Amino acid sequence: MAERETSSVISADKVEGTAVYDRSGNRLGTVDDVMLDKVSGKALYAIMSFGGFLGMGENHYPLPWSSLTYDPNQGGYVVELTKEQLESAPTYDPAASSTWTPEYGRDIDDYWSSSRSTAPRSRV
Amino acid sequence: MAERETSSVISADKVEGTAVYDRSGNRLGTVDDVMLDKVSGKALYAIMSFGGFLGMGENHYPLPWSSLTYDPNQGGYVVELTKEQLESAPTYDPAASSTWTPEYGRDIDDYWSSSRSTAPRSRV
Repeated sequence: MAERETSSVISADKVEGTAVYDRSGNRLGTVDDVMLDKVSGKALYAIMSFGGFLGMGENHYPLPWSSLTYDPNQGGYVVELTKEQLESAPTYDPAASSTWTPEYGRDIDDYWSSSRSTAPRSRV
Repeated sequence: MAERETSSVISADKVEGTAVYDRSGNRLGTVDDVMLDKVSGKALYAIMSFGGFLGMGENHYPLPWSSLTYDPNQGGYVVELTKEQLESAPTYDPAASSTWTPEYGRDIDDYWSSSRSTAPRSRV
């Protein structure tokens, strides 16, 4: 039973801080937070911070949880995404909780569902 | 689709700090942390702090996520548990990450599966 796989149990506090790599092993960023379905407890998005320098100019990107694969060897998550895809992806402002409207959720889902099935493209 | 229910999306950072009530509306404690399945992202346990005074002597209890029901009116989780059940429940030391062995996970599951189906009883 999945519930018994306690060796794969991790605290949300510890997911935060886990590195995210691309397919080539380049570090893209770090998980900041996890967005859960309030009722089911299913993780829907990992918020990944990326860019900037020493925390300045850093952006926060909600990535669909299903796009993350945990790689025990690297001790981090691997995503099938490129820096180019991230650069035009919807960002999230953790300080503005009102940001997460239903429309915003759809924007994220639409961006990643189209971005993952086609070549990277500009959304501007 | 569940993924679209963005009004029910909440940050793990914000689940932490959410109150937990019993069926009668008594506040039992506060969620400290969420234990996730590392691979699927499913929340398996909420770590609830309970007891003590001003953070001293406080205990941390992993509760099966399935035992928590979010009540929007109370703005917190409701559990079908009593203080008596909590008092003899397995505790968790957040400072000792090695605590979470497979045996420990089984102890939690066994305690709550028997405790929830029968009258509260001592496990000492």
